[in-house]
Amino acid sequence: MCASSQSPQLQVAIRLPDWIHEIADWQGVYHSDEEKMALAITLADENVKRQTGGPFGSAIFDMDSGKLLGVGVNQVVAQNNSTLHGEVTAIMLSQKRIENFTLGAQGARRELFTSCEPCAMCMGATLWSGVKRLVCAATGEDARAIGFDEGPVFEQSYAYLKKAGLDVVRELMREQGRQVLQDYRLNGGEIYNG
Amino acid sequence: MCASSQSPQLQVAIRLPDWIHEIADWQGVYHSDEEKMALAITLADENVKRQTGGPFGSAIFDMDSGKLLGVGVNQVVAQNNSTLHGEVTAIMLSQKRIENFTLGAQGARRELFTSCEPCAMCMGATLWSGVKRLVCAATGEDARAIGFDEGPVFEQSYAYLKKAGLDVVRELMREQGRQVLQDYRLNGGEIYNG
Repeated sequence: MCASSQSPQLQVAIRLPDWIHEIADWQGVYHSDEEKMALAITLADENVKRQTGGPFGSAIFDMDSGKLLGVGVNQVVAQNNSTLHGEVTAIMLSQKRIENFTLGAQGARRELFTSCEPCAMCMGATLWSGVKRLVCAATGEDARAIGFDEGPVFEQSYAYLKKAGLDVVRELMREQGRQVLQDYRLNGGEIYNG
Repeated sequence: MCASSQSPQLQVAIRLPDWIHEIADWQGVYHSDEEKMALAITLADENVKRQTGGPFGSAIFDMDSGKLLGVGVNQVVAQNNSTLHGEVTAIMLSQKRIENFTLGAQGARRELFTSCEPCAMCMGATLWSGVKRLVCAATGEDARAIGFDEGPVFEQSYAYLKKAGLDVVRELMREQGRQVLQDYRLNGGEIYNG
């Protein structure tokens, strides 16, 4: 490896695809859980169709105003970075936007919608993010059914989040979330680290 | 929030402090587990002393050559990003360096040394990173003792990693790792999200 003879750069730039601006409504209000989840699932679906990443999307909203704060799509293969799941990218971008390391800053109440239940990494990231609510569509089982591993996430992981004060809703629009995963497999999408 | 009336930027730049180049030996060989862990613990300690972040450090090595591939220090508060734990930053920088989303690419064997047992997020991130070995100093209990939460990580999380083929070593130089945490608390270090 040529790089081993030099000091490596100490920085990483993370960038989401520009088409997200065609999908996300940054000015309007998302009124219902279904509207919010539809965005997360559309992000997952478009990420596959536009060939910019894996079949997972997330969106973070302000619970009081219904406004969109940030979004994320899986960028693991696209950006050579195994930490860039939809939830993690949504959290990073949202925190950058408010310039704070917790989305609960100044009494704000934010909620994370995700097209598929979080893996172990994203469960932890959700807890640290400062969101007050987690809403999921497809289940971890649905992800495993097409070959993705969810890692060490258990029922007691959900209990842990609830005990920490997060409201957790699962299987909202599960079928639509699962359909994106199924389509991905049917079209021969890459199951990395599977 | 002024930003809510515009489309936000879809990028985040992550940058580790330059002093890391004073500590990390990018050219030499780290011969023993103790030398490797000493680097992870020194990174944690220097991160606090130089006031660039929290008391956690990680380093990733090539197991066959003993060469250093990448490092990470906690940058949560410094960069307004709750995902930037030591392990996550080390994984991101290492994958960027080899330009691959798995550190196990092309048969390589890499190992992650961390000054404190990973939280739930970093346990998941470790699994996805493609490292073959995880070595920890201070325990999760040591982190909790100064007020940090470790999130939903359980004994069965370690069992999951082992079943996935990772070699896991815990409590190597635990006392030195714990000392960094204790010093941080004694000096009034911020326990964010605590």
